[in-house]
Amino acid sequence: MRNNNRKNDEMRPLTLEVGFNPYAEGSCLVKCGNTHVICTASVDEKVPPFLKGQGRGWVTAEYGMLPRSTATRMDREAVRGQSGRTQEIQRLIGRALRMAVDMEALGEQTIKIDCDVIQADGGTRTASVTGGFVALAQAISKMHAKKPFAKYPLKDTICAISCGICDGEARLDLEYEEDSTAETDANFVMTGAGKIVEIQGTAEGAPFSGDDFLSLLNLAQKAGKDITDMQKKVLNLDD
Amino acid sequence: MRNNNRKNDEMRPLTLEVGFNPYAEGSCLVKCGNTHVICTASVDEKVPPFLKGQGRGWVTAEYGMLPRSTATRMDREAVRGQSGRTQEIQRLIGRALRMAVDMEALGEQTIKIDCDVIQADGGTRTASVTGGFVALAQAISKMHAKKPFAKYPLKDTICAISCGICDGEARLDLEYEEDSTAETDANFVMTGAGKIVEIQGTAEGAPFSGDDFLSLLNLAQKAGKDITDMQKKVLNLDD
Amino acid sequence: MRNNNRKNDEMRPLTLEVGFNPYAEGSCLVKCGNTHVICTASVDEKVPPFLKGQGRGWVTAEYGMLPRSTATRMDREAVRGQSGRTQEIQRLIGRALRMAVDMEALGEQTIKIDCDVIQADGGTRTASVTGGFVALAQAISKMHAKKPFAKYPLKDTICAISCGICDGEARLDLEYEEDSTAETDANFVMTGAGKIVEIQGTAEGAPFSGDDFLSLLNLAQKAGKDITDMQKKVLNLDD
Amino acid sequence: MRNNNRKNDEMRPLTLEVGFNPYAEGSCLVKCGNTHVICTASVDEKVPPFLKGQGRGWVTAEYGMLPRSTATRMDREAVRGQSGRTQEIQRLIGRALRMAVDMEALGEQTIKIDCDVIQADGGTRTASVTGGFVALAQAISKMHAKKPFAKYPLKDTICAISCGICDGEARLDLEYEEDSTAETDANFVMTGAGKIVEIQGTAEGAPFSGDDFLSLLNLAQKAGKDITDMQKKVLNLDD
Amino acid sequence: MRNNNRKNDEMRPLTLEVGFNPYAEGSCLVKCGNTHVICTASVDEKVPPFLKGQGRGWVTAEYGMLPRSTATRMDREAVRGQSGRTQEIQRLIGRALRMAVDMEALGEQTIKIDCDVIQADGGTRTASVTGGFVALAQAISKMHAKKPFAKYPLKDTICAISCGICDGEARLDLEYEEDSTAETDANFVMTGAGKIVEIQGTAEGAPFSGDDFLSLLNLAQKAGKDITDMQKKVLNLDD
Amino acid sequence: MRNNNRKNDEMRPLTLEVGFNPYAEGSCLVKCGNTHVICTASVDEKVPPFLKGQGRGWVTAEYGMLPRSTATRMDREAVRGQSGRTQEIQRLIGRALRMAVDMEALGEQTIKIDCDVIQADGGTRTASVTGGFVALAQAISKMHAKKPFAKYPLKDTICAISCGICDGEARLDLEYEEDSTAETDANFVMTGAGKIVEIQGTAEGAPFSGDDFLSLLNLAQKAGKDITDMQKKVLNLDD
Repeated sequence: MRNNNRKNDEMRPLTLEVGFNPYAEGSCLVKCGNTHVICTASVDEKVPPFLKGQGRGWVTAEYGMLPRSTATRMDREAVRGQSGRTQEIQRLIGRALRMAVDMEALGEQTIKIDCDVIQADGGTRTASVTGGFVALAQAISKMHAKKPFAKYPLKDTICAISCGICDGEARLDLEYEEDSTAETDANFVMTGAGKIVEIQGTAEGAPFSGDDFLSLLNLAQKAGKDITDMQKKVLNLDD
Repeated sequence: MRNNNRKNDEMRPLTLEVGFNPYAEGSCLVKCGNTHVICTASVDEKVPPFLKGQGRGWVTAEYGMLPRSTATRMDREAVRGQSGRTQEIQRLIGRALRMAVDMEALGEQTIKIDCDVIQADGGTRTASVTGGFVALAQAISKMHAKKPFAKYPLKDTICAISCGICDGEARLDLEYEEDSTAETDANFVMTGAGKIVEIQGTAEGAPFSGDDFLSLLNLAQKAGKDITDMQKKVLNLDD
Repeated sequence: MRNNNRKNDEMRPLTLEVGFNPYAEGSCLVKCGNTHVICTASVDEKVPPFLKGQGRGWVTAEYGMLPRSTATRMDREAVRGQSGRTQEIQRLIGRALRMAVDMEALGEQTIKIDCDVIQADGGTRTASVTGGFVALAQAISKMHAKKPFAKYPLKDTICAISCGICDGEARLDLEYEEDSTAETDANFVMTGAGKIVEIQGTAEGAPFSGDDFLSLLNLAQKAGKDITDMQKKVLNLDD
Repeated sequence: MRNNNRKNDEMRPLTLEVGFNPYAEGSCLVKCGNTHVICTASVDEKVPPFLKGQGRGWVTAEYGMLPRSTATRMDREAVRGQSGRTQEIQRLIGRALRMAVDMEALGEQTIKIDCDVIQADGGTRTASVTGGFVALAQAISKMHAKKPFAKYPLKDTICAISCGICDGEARLDLEYEEDSTAETDANFVMTGAGKIVEIQGTAEGAPFSGDDFLSLLNLAQKAGKDITDMQKKVLNLDD
Repeated sequence: MRNNNRKNDEMRPLTLEVGFNPYAEGSCLVKCGNTHVICTASVDEKVPPFLKGQGRGWVTAEYGMLPRSTATRMDREAVRGQSGRTQEIQRLIGRALRMAVDMEALGEQTIKIDCDVIQADGGTRTASVTGGFVALAQAISKMHAKKPFAKYPLKDTICAISCGICDGEARLDLEYEEDSTAETDANFVMTGAGKIVEIQGTAEGAPFSGDDFLSLLNLAQKAGKDITDMQKKVLNLDD
Repeated sequence: MRNNNRKNDEMRPLTLEVGFNPYAEGSCLVKCGNTHVICTASVDEKVPPFLKGQGRGWVTAEYGMLPRSTATRMDREAVRGQSGRTQEIQRLIGRALRMAVDMEALGEQTIKIDCDVIQADGGTRTASVTGGFVALAQAISKMHAKKPFAKYPLKDTICAISCGICDGEARLDLEYEEDSTAETDANFVMTGAGKIVEIQGTAEGAPFSGDDFLSLLNLAQKAGKDITDMQKKVLNLDD
């Protein structure tokens, strides 16, 4: 039995608090059960050197965890430097969110998404993608209000969810305790239209079959619709 | 006129949410106006090498700001390393909080206080001391409940507040806007009994006189009583 | 038309030179078309601190590229530090190869796999997994010859291959030129028995469907059999 | 009794050797008892990026200790990086010396003060401020001789001294041995006119009262006059 | 007796494989016995800041060893940073190769030589100079073919060899085993015309006399002719 | 004509102030013309990990330059890290001084020599060797006085000098101005008995002949005797 009598295809309670941060162009406090992440979007009127003069924009992300966001304290990354895990996650978030944006329409400016985990109970990278998208969309909306884009740069919505196989059963949205004992662990990033943007599947205990993987994909795609609906609602986006 | 019609000797609204973090031994979300800091206390059953085998404990602190806790985004310290300002502040917090603790009574363990600024509007170091003390005291209280100390290691309460001279007037608890234009800027760390633990006073625009400084000290000591009362109340400490 | 008239489901010529390095316990020079990687396995009679005293072994990997392994010179990582991409890849290689080994049977020692790319033409991470496995298996075989294991620690073979969608077509084993223009890019790590160990799929140009992904998985699983046969042959492993 | 029968309000012998370094625009070897610091001023015809194009100059400082300037050898900071203490001290020196200079009159150039401790016996930061000022003033004087400023950029003289409470007594200019056992430790930076530029007071053993602090301030202000006289004399500055 | 019955004045078998790397402007795989080094030359159409606008070119070098190029695995420099030994060696290679080039004739571009040791059995720095020269010369030749230089920038050939005193005997081209027990160890960099470019001689066990040193110099100069002949042959350079 | 009418075989005035630093076990302020270096010897009752338990001691060195020891200010190495040049020099000093010591007689302790350049006018590395030896010898002498060694660990004296070819003439002890325009630059480390410990010769402008090099060696060996005499005199060593 899962905690709180959750069913295998049931997400933890998800809330998205848009505009949580008073200073950022866009922001969202995302809570998925006990996983809480502050996402902000900061607009910079420059692009990285490799893009200069091409008329295209850029979206990138950084990720961090507060030292005591976890059950036992981790070393502070400002002291020891970013771990490989952190870099891997922030690269994933950036790649995922770039799929939402028409870079020509955005023009030569950068939107940087910061995802800072306040509490961690599994699924911090997928919560960061989901909340990071809301911060990004709010920022684009505010930019448009200030100075309208010729073409609106938001192409689609982006959300993410984790799944895994625990005790031989495919489960949606793993808590930390489930995640750390899962046989297989997978993360899915999807568009609002149900297409796939990124798949990561890792055998932790035993290798898995193509069919195992399909059952996880099905769970994720079903949940993706619900998350998308909630994103659209808090952002007042029409279908 | 100050924002919100604040008087020169009036603090911004202060709230202390004890136990904000579900994992840490002690924690406090301190809000002082728009300055919000998450403070956690983590207990480690070791001491640093220089203290090994002496039977004494240790209290230390780390400080950080989320990149978009400020009006314009700062670089992430996990990427560029800790700045001199950050190190200066976390050294101050650690020194201040060590004055609250009887290290012999604590015994060979370390309590690490993490102060992470979620929103910054001036006074983040003094809010960190005030909230960090609450996290520290909660941790000691929980440790005592689990396994009573022979002698209770908390000697006193510790709080802090900033003051400054703006347009020739001594003012309590500067917001960022006031702080950045103040002629003189000072931070005071005090015990609950009204004694001084640390004084830092810096001329920003023009040097100041001994009398100027005394007027700031008076403001701080008056405010110290109110902050101490609030700390005792949320911690259920008797006078 | 692909270079050298390759068919969409055709791998580039693959060679595995076992024992390429005269000093290492295990080694393999893997060549997959113009992608050449030197893989070595080094045995250390210690385990990392987090595993001490548990009687279990460890397998880990490091990855690097010579500065001029690519068409234009890259900065040397010894000078600028390891990039996020490098860390992501070496974490993948380590995770993949750990699935081949029974850590209890290995006992308290570490096998470190170094994968150094001499020439890069796409697919360096999958070539590293394929060649790294050969180095690992040779090292275990030599260790066994010197001092037999009670239980042989090699559980399965591990290989990897990349696939992608280019111009709307699913293709096996992308060269750099194809990889850099692919709409979707995926890497598959598989066991000799055809099960999946790791899946990474990323939309580069446009999101993809579940069916798109299945077609890539099929290509990879078919190729996995051929790579496994070649690994077994050069290692003299029976089926 | 203090070493050498020093009275509580008596400074150690202070010497200021102007022009100690043959290459620097300004320099001073300051000796305060057994504390010896080489201070140099280097002129750079640029300002830091944040000041470009504003027509204003900049003064900044760096501080270091030779590894064996102390009774037991410290690690070399070139190997381990600058400590938090070092950064705190050099920030203090820079802030202090900027108060001496009219940045508009200086124009777009930077004067960098290097303070390198050859021998340390307490009070290295205050000796660095005192000697650093002399180096700074000599550099400005030489710049003026070469190419006269429209307005002379030196506004005031700056000096500093430490005080502390030892065995319940307020004492001026602590040696290392006194400093390490003082109940309270304070540093004062003052102008030649007797105003205060920076105050740092720290309880080391026990919190202190406002009156305690005033007694230290009095000691410092009295000594400040003597130090200022000596600075003016070696620099040939008129009152 | 030396390994393989080598005489004291006999080099190990030397091969120079020009054009080993398909991407680099110049390249050479040099094998000197069991010491194998991949050398590449990369052309960059910029010069370092200190040379900008002077119309002169630059040649520089970087050196690295694969972690398992040696009998026991070394830490990867991308993880721990470049050692002092590595920096010393790459400075030597750069200095040596700059003597071969007329920087005015080259014009404002940089040729960077990368020397990566695949297998190490003594003499890696001298092999790197010898092979690095071949890569450099091939790059200049290709540049000339593409766009002829007004004056050909190659002034001379450069080669290097190690010598040492083992068991009281002067020996040419030490293997690792000999090198690690030699009383004296010396490296010589020479021009094709027999002049000396760099001498490094170090007493490892006992100080040596001027005559000892002359005997090593003689060995090196004799071998230099043979190495030069081989370089000229593989590069099709006339005498 | 050289500065101060120096002859080609004439050293600059050399002074060795033993015991310059009041804290170090051994120390020497060496002045060679305008090159001034503070050398200290610090005794540590441990050896590095690679020597533990072998009953042998260790001597090692660190080198640094004050930022304004030179005509134009250099970046502080505590900020940017040690340069390759610095590491090369401190490795040379350590190697050189180890030749003076019988490590078995010293026993399991480390003597660390710090050489900090206060003023630089060429020849800082050779002055560091010469002065570092004096600091080392003083430390060993003091250790012996405190607790006599069974066998005295000082085997020989060590000194060093630079030479070079300027305008076709062999010259002893180059100043910075000569050094920076020399055709050939060489450093010699020698024992008191006239044997060679280290030779470094580098062609800066044009390659040199064996005979050129011999003329430099002769100059150095002659000067070595004078430096040795001075070292013995200040250390009260008998011949």
